Amino acid sequence: MQQQFEAVSMTGGHGTNSYANNSLLQRDGANLVKTMIEEAVAEKLEIDTFPSVGTFNITDLGCSVGPNTFLAVQTIVKALEHKCASLGLSSCMPEFQVFFSDHSSNDFNTLFASLPPNRPYFATGVPGSFYGRLFPKASLHFAYSSYALHWLSKVPKEVLDRNSPAWNKGRVICLGGPREVFEAFSRHFGRDVEAFLSARAQEMVSGGIMGLIILGRDDKVAEAKSPIGVIGGVLGSVLMDMAAKGTIEEAKVDSFNLPIFTPTAKEYQKLVESNGYFSIEKLELVRDDSDRSSDVAIDPKMLAMHGRAATEDMVRKHFGHEVVDEVYQRGEKKIMENSHLFKNANVLLPSLFVILKRKADPQIA
Amino acid sequence: MQQQFEAVSMTGGHGTNSYANNSLLQRDGANLVKTMIEEAVAEKLEIDTFPSVGTFNITDLGCSVGPNTFLAVQTIVKALEHKCASLGLSSCMPEFQVFFSDHSSNDFNTLFASLPPNRPYFATGVPGSFYGRLFPKASLHFAYSSYALHWLSKVPKEVLDRNSPAWNKGRVICLGGPREVFEAFSRHFGRDVEAFLSARAQEMVSGGIMGLIILGRDDKVAEAKSPIGVIGGVLGSVLMDMAAKGTIEEAKVDSFNLPIFTPTAKEYQKLVESNGYFSIEKLELVRDDSDRSSDVAIDPKMLAMHGRAATEDMVRKHFGHEVVDEVYQRGEKKIMENSHLFKNANVLLPSLFVILKRKADPQIA
Repeated sequence: MQQQFEAVSMTGGHGTNSYANNSLLQRDGANLVKTMIEEAVAEKLEIDTFPSVGTFNITDLGCSVGPNTFLAVQTIVKALEHKCASLGLSSCMPEFQVFFSDHSSNDFNTLFASLPPNRPYFATGVPGSFYGRLFPKASLHFAYSSYALHWLSKVPKEVLDRNSPAWNKGRVICLGGPREVFEAFSRHFGRDVEAFLSARAQEMVSGGIMGLIILGRDDKVAEAKSPIGVIGGVLGSVLMDMAAKGTIEEAKVDSFNLPIFTPTAKEYQKLVESNGYFSIEKLELVRDDSDRSSDVAIDPKMLAMHGRAATEDMVRKHFGHEVVDEVYQRGEKKIMENSHLFKNANVLLPSLFVILKRKADPQIA
Repeated sequence: MQQQFEAVSMTGGHGTNSYANNSLLQRDGANLVKTMIEEAVAEKLEIDTFPSVGTFNITDLGCSVGPNTFLAVQTIVKALEHKCASLGLSSCMPEFQVFFSDHSSNDFNTLFASLPPNRPYFATGVPGSFYGRLFPKASLHFAYSSYALHWLSKVPKEVLDRNSPAWNKGRVICLGGPREVFEAFSRHFGRDVEAFLSARAQEMVSGGIMGLIILGRDDKVAEAKSPIGVIGGVLGSVLMDMAAKGTIEEAKVDSFNLPIFTPTAKEYQKLVESNGYFSIEKLELVRDDSDRSSDVAIDPKMLAMHGRAATEDMVRKHFGHEVVDEVYQRGEKKIMENSHLFKNANVLLPSLFVILKRKADPQIA
């Protein structure tokens, strides 16, 4: 993640508004994905074909500060141990080395301080952008990423340019505006995915598996009613209200966009195929349709808190810390007043569940 | 490094009293050791005997926050590149992965933020004590440690026990007191070295090289006149003065010891031989006898600042932050008033320069 992404660290620490205390949606996703990880390892990973695996190397790309990353890694290691045991490899069970990776402004001190004490793996931290190389050639066996790959490396230039047809005036996301805005974000996302997959193609062994969870878009749901559309719509409208009141400058709103793109399954599939280094073992859009979702669907406070945890750092850096509380108080009020809007929205965010396998030979499609 | 060592982090940040600004002695040592690293790689490392080195793994154990660790790693990587080129391996030059390791309370955020931008290696951080396992089996090719291995895993219990003949009343180090004190520290150091070497024996490939720089003791110099003896003597005497004045409790002084042991070359040699996993390629006590050393030898301010950078965190945690400034102001004054004492002291600290090679078969001596 490059400079622009450095600006979108999740809120650190353990306070009411911290990421650690407001990542329930992500953890729900991680629970849903537990089955996917187990399936990926049990059915897709041919661990016995790897040449003499003394160490099995795992990475979580975009790990943040925990605790979700520790839960995911635990699932991966348990599934691998089970796999080795079922293949009769228990006597030569590999050791596990886990590379927790995020951009260098991530709070690695907090991450390291909260590592589980009796972990069945050797822990390391890797600072840097996953849109570039992070690891030596052919050194990774399993790469995992949860709710990180929808962050672009930066906001596309065109959408901040008042002379471009893609100028995203008065909005903060790629949805709900002119087609050109969407297309600028989409092109940028395509380049980022290509950079991500090409870097990983170098780093993963043949047969290595990637399990990716990415905020996705349901092409059957109107953009403005998609969860990202709702959150972005509320934030944009709050900022415009505050500009009208004179609390912040309108030009400052126009130069602010969230570097997020949520692909449909079809869009992501095309990008993976065009890259060509990975075979698609699974790629589907998953939504939580459980009863529980209807219980939380109209809790505006919770929606507001999750929106805040994910965007507060960016808002603070762009608009200054003195307006942050007002932005989110207004946001919560707006969500409360318009709760009818959310009845048909998927408050639990739709996610792409993707399993990719590194092909034996690089065959560019 | 275990709990007790967690208490001895170097002072973080970049202030006047920070480790980063007061580690000149250590950097001098690193400059001296540049030749040793180059010698170790050029003459001792048989890189061509390693089975298919795709990645060459390097660690700095006790790396702190930089910049010394970056200079050392740069020297190691350059020497390795030179070695590969001279062996005609340039076409299949391995990639380098560097594991910066220190205890988990080290400021890894600062370390990561100050990584050189165009570094010829992949950087990772490894939190934990080097007296236990940190890496998978047979995964390291070169391990480096500079001025870290003289820190014990903790203060020996006996020296804090008023009923033991090894009670170190009114002193803060192992030198200059009863023989039993020295012996308690020496036994503890022996156990720590055994733990360190046994962990590394698991982690290093056969033929892997360790380059270690350890604060040492010259057995021809009286203990009290050795640099550690001088610094410890000054600190102990300042603390006793403050106890007499009633600023701190005397019992508090009696329960404070620096967990430092500085071995002679002979002592360290015996420990390595008794462990048996490594052959000794080089082991010598080095002192800087250059002209420059006489210029700085009687600069009490510099001596006081170095002593402060290395011990301030421990003093603060044990006695409270409100007495820290007074401790070091008194220390500086005492050094100034007694500068005749330091004329015969080696102000540039004598250091053991050690090159060890992992034997092909574990042969316990």
